[in-house]
Amino acid sequence: MNKYLVDMEPIGRRIEVEPGTNLLEAGQKAGVDLVAACGGIGICGTCKVRLVNGNLTPISLTEEELLTREELAEGMRLACQAEPLSDLLLDIPRESLPAAQQMQIDGREVGVMLDPMVLAIDLLLAQPDLSDLRSDWSRVQEALAQLGFPVLRGVLPSLARLSPELRANGWAVRLVVRPEHEHLQLVTVLPPGMPIMGLAADMGSTKLAVFLVDLDTGATLAKAGVMNPQIAYGEDVVSRIAYANRSEENRLLLQRRLGETFNQVIADLCAEVGAVPGQIVDAVIVGNTAMHHFFTALPVSQLGASPYVPSVSDALDVQATDVLLNLAPGAAVHLPANIAGYVGGDHTACLLASQSFPSDQNLILVDIGTNTEISLVMGRRAAQQDEAAIYSCSCASGPAFEGAHIRDGMRAAPGAVERVRIRDGAAQVKTIGDLPAVGICGSGILEVMAELVDAGVVDSRGVLRRDQPGVRLGEGNKAEYLLVPAAQTGHGRDVVVTRKDIHEIQLAKGAIRAGLEILLLRAGISADEVDAWIIAGAFGTYLDLAAAQRIGMFPRQPLQRFHQVGNAAGVGAKQMLLSSAARRLSAALIRRVEYIELTVQPEFTDLYVAALEMV
Amino acid sequence: MNKYLVDMEPIGRRIEVEPGTNLLEAGQKAGVDLVAACGGIGICGTCKVRLVNGNLTPISLTEEELLTREELAEGMRLACQAEPLSDLLLDIPRESLPAAQQMQIDGREVGVMLDPMVLAIDLLLAQPDLSDLRSDWSRVQEALAQLGFPVLRGVLPSLARLSPELRANGWAVRLVVRPEHEHLQLVTVLPPGMPIMGLAADMGSTKLAVFLVDLDTGATLAKAGVMNPQIAYGEDVVSRIAYANRSEENRLLLQRRLGETFNQVIADLCAEVGAVPGQIVDAVIVGNTAMHHFFTALPVSQLGASPYVPSVSDALDVQATDVLLNLAPGAAVHLPANIAGYVGGDHTACLLASQSFPSDQNLILVDIGTNTEISLVMGRRAAQQDEAAIYSCSCASGPAFEGAHIRDGMRAAPGAVERVRIRDGAAQVKTIGDLPAVGICGSGILEVMAELVDAGVVDSRGVLRRDQPGVRLGEGNKAEYLLVPAAQTGHGRDVVVTRKDIHEIQLAKGAIRAGLEILLLRAGISADEVDAWIIAGAFGTYLDLAAAQRIGMFPRQPLQRFHQVGNAAGVGAKQMLLSSAARRLSAALIRRVEYIELTVQPEFTDLYVAALEMV
Repeated sequence: MNKYLVDMEPIGRRIEVEPGTNLLEAGQKAGVDLVAACGGIGICGTCKVRLVNGNLTPISLTEEELLTREELAEGMRLACQAEPLSDLLLDIPRESLPAAQQMQIDGREVGVMLDPMVLAIDLLLAQPDLSDLRSDWSRVQEALAQLGFPVLRGVLPSLARLSPELRANGWAVRLVVRPEHEHLQLVTVLPPGMPIMGLAADMGSTKLAVFLVDLDTGATLAKAGVMNPQIAYGEDVVSRIAYANRSEENRLLLQRRLGETFNQVIADLCAEVGAVPGQIVDAVIVGNTAMHHFFTALPVSQLGASPYVPSVSDALDVQATDVLLNLAPGAAVHLPANIAGYVGGDHTACLLASQSFPSDQNLILVDIGTNTEISLVMGRRAAQQDEAAIYSCSCASGPAFEGAHIRDGMRAAPGAVERVRIRDGAAQVKTIGDLPAVGICGSGILEVMAELVDAGVVDSRGVLRRDQPGVRLGEGNKAEYLLVPAAQTGHGRDVVVTRKDIHEIQLAKGAIRAGLEILLLRAGISADEVDAWIIAGAFGTYLDLAAAQRIGMFPRQPLQRFHQVGNAAGVGAKQMLLSSAARRLSAALIRRVEYIELTVQPEFTDLYVAALEMV
Repeated sequence: MNKYLVDMEPIGRRIEVEPGTNLLEAGQKAGVDLVAACGGIGICGTCKVRLVNGNLTPISLTEEELLTREELAEGMRLACQAEPLSDLLLDIPRESLPAAQQMQIDGREVGVMLDPMVLAIDLLLAQPDLSDLRSDWSRVQEALAQLGFPVLRGVLPSLARLSPELRANGWAVRLVVRPEHEHLQLVTVLPPGMPIMGLAADMGSTKLAVFLVDLDTGATLAKAGVMNPQIAYGEDVVSRIAYANRSEENRLLLQRRLGETFNQVIADLCAEVGAVPGQIVDAVIVGNTAMHHFFTALPVSQLGASPYVPSVSDALDVQATDVLLNLAPGAAVHLPANIAGYVGGDHTACLLASQSFPSDQNLILVDIGTNTEISLVMGRRAAQQDEAAIYSCSCASGPAFEGAHIRDGMRAAPGAVERVRIRDGAAQVKTIGDLPAVGICGSGILEVMAELVDAGVVDSRGVLRRDQPGVRLGEGNKAEYLLVPAAQTGHGRDVVVTRKDIHEIQLAKGAIRAGLEILLLRAGISADEVDAWIIAGAFGTYLDLAAAQRIGMFPRQPLQRFHQVGNAAGVGAKQMLLSSAARRLSAALIRRVEYIELTVQPEFTDLYVAALEMV
């Protein structure tokens, strides 16, 4: 009998199941426990999953009862009721998963002088009567002018709040304004004294990190890491670009799904601190260039074909409503400049955050992901040249470090192997949550590779030595390494490392190393002259630096020169939210960047081939 | 058996019908012929009407077949299938009426120097390659900078047009921009050379006048007059304010219905000239203060209660999308300043249009409607004082001149009595379209009054003399004048004038006359010192000036001093669309206006009582 492949997103687990297996059972076999309060007997309605692609058995009476018409219309099903009739792509809603995934959203915090873009002004006005028939808006304008403020303007939804708030609060009112060239722009009207907040977010291709920040103190009030809902429409940005290019509707759908998720997170964060989204008066959102374009619904076809140019690279200040965010009615969203088609505003934010390192040092900044962005900041020369030159490039490192394209790869979720030691031919593994293993996450894969090389199981070309312990012939008579035998796993199947897995890791780390070498070459310095290696991003946080050096991903430099700073993009976004000086600095940084397109560098191919070696 | 009252809007006909009469027959009895291609046998589906209030017989199988689910959901019915079960309020869609109503939308045109707010710039750009990876937006910015233009900004929907247009037209492109303080604002991106257009509109409480204008030549390309769809939610602005105050949804619904109607008209006008709405790059829309607030969805509760202040009186430039208009993606809509709660931007536009009269004359400007706005421009003194003072007021003249609150009143539609002569006790009438009479429109009512006074049928207090020919005892034994006997009417019922009708006209004309007298008093001049009496508005166009003087609505000044200029608000709106100088002038005019609140003037009551006399 045929088996069906079930792809569970956004958690990134794929599993083959027999026909007749319901989706709840399929999830359990894949190590994905869905919430099923009733134990799967069809009475609780909690094990909701959304069918994105493929065919399921018809909607049951139970589902008709427990799901709303809207839910059914958007493809929602109960996992305990539905069985696959084909290969499937499922979207697992956050609320259907009991345990949060491991989400690294914090970064090394950097002090910043509080100087936000918005300003709250509390006013007490005289109320109108037959001898004073000024409109509410004129009344406010004249009070502001008396205090020496410039003229106030506003978009209609912010203006519409004025008259009711004035009358609800005895003609006392808090105006939240954003000073612009020669005028104040009205953001919202609140009861006098109500606190104002800002939103900072980093949009990764895989996950979103969102921070709710107090604009009076700079404190982070609440934060959340959630999966990027666009994963259901393409695991990486290249496939999402292809999806968006198929139709205008697709492109707008990508934007809408992102907006919905943001608004859900915003509502949750506000509820957590007893606030309402209308108190969020400013936002800074960073992401790679593709995410930036998806978020703003800018066209992406030119991003998907050579020479891969962005539609817009300049910093943008857009209306929150134009990116579908539910914030204060006149709130703007700042998106810092993109550097190139594959170096986005998230890297700009990383560069900003890395300004906390001494300015006379040479810095390498590496943000590892499906796409890895690298910058070399030439601080040592800045003393002579006024400003440090910055060289930036983008490496197509692929999704292997996120567990994709790896036979037993998975994201950093419970049950993922994250640490490995091979001693006397035997593998010892540690998993996230110390559960029986169900797969290997990115940091685990990297360690396996380093250990296999050190143990001599894999040679410098990446080939598995068949005479080594743990190596056996697997599918198609190809050599594979048995990492965790079926008896010790959570799903009763072996967890193995294949030759193809090794090859994927070689391509990924080789791309990063080649990019580093090209930047050093263009800047005319050696790796020894780099004072600090700043490793940003979630994967970079969990990465074993020694292992990364052992397989040749980074040069063998002293480990104390390496700094794992976590979500530097999120930190930079918060800096820009809290400080208009930081926004100006980020714009100045961008002007110093020389973007290096790796593929046109004559030395690239040789360096890349050399970097594939496991040394 | 009880009769039911059926109110057919937006055409403003009310009729009593017996139970068992279907709505098609009811319309025919009321002189309202609905389109019914099949003759009313339920097979064509053309006689659509929308039930706003009241109860009808259940939906028939025929209606289920011929109406879509959406139509049924919004209360659409087939007139030939439905019978009243209560008093009804019906909304008759434009397409269900065979003949357009008489719609005065033109005004006396005024020459204007062409100087629009937007600018088209045709560019030809170098295309990107691996040695030139600038984003599309940077490429455009740099080309503009080379031509000496300031920096370009844009809202997301306008930016989103750039990349596809560049690639569709071989890197040639037309940018439409609006110069602002220190930058250019992107309105849209079009193929090179594509013509650009503007939209001017006057929003009356009863009808909308819409003009599509060529911004290169200033020519009016197409125009339309349509009923204001908000009539179904309240005949006058006071009842619509009450409706809007009942809920946020209601207020937004008023805006939405207006936007839908505008977009329908815009699509029609564009189709007429072979254009698309995306070519409309600028708009000026004027209306009274309530319509201005409905259109912008500003709160109106403060407009509905003393001291009747507007939420916003300043001129506004809003995003077309914020008022739900489908124009070019970055198009702005200009709304000139409101003068007071009941003197709106439409009057500002009238004042602008009246600038074509010599500047050293004293002008009276009267725009007659449910609310009548009057301004007195003191031109003769301007020579000494630099600028002419302007006194403005608002008179609650009521809807009598639009045929409402008049027993057989109706709007200026086919079959309405518009001209009357009483000779030897017998009335001779002329109707619109020379059809058998079905009612009396505003200009007809005014003439009837003047003729009845002249013939001695009505005395100076407005009382019908029972001994005069044509006067009889009607309902409730009250005197009434038989204008058209049943045998000569289109619906087989008498068309009469009642004492109450006369009283309504006395209140209406008295309010206007009292307003005129107060302004003259405040300015310290007599009626003789007014050089020009400018009568604006549709009703003012059809008005018999001699009749209006005979009943005391206007002072008995030489008729050649009176100028019936038609839709001056529409003309002023077009001027502001075509000329940024005209926009600045309208702002300057507003600053010279002294608003006179009639009800607090000590002389008002006496002047009003005196003005009720039919002399």
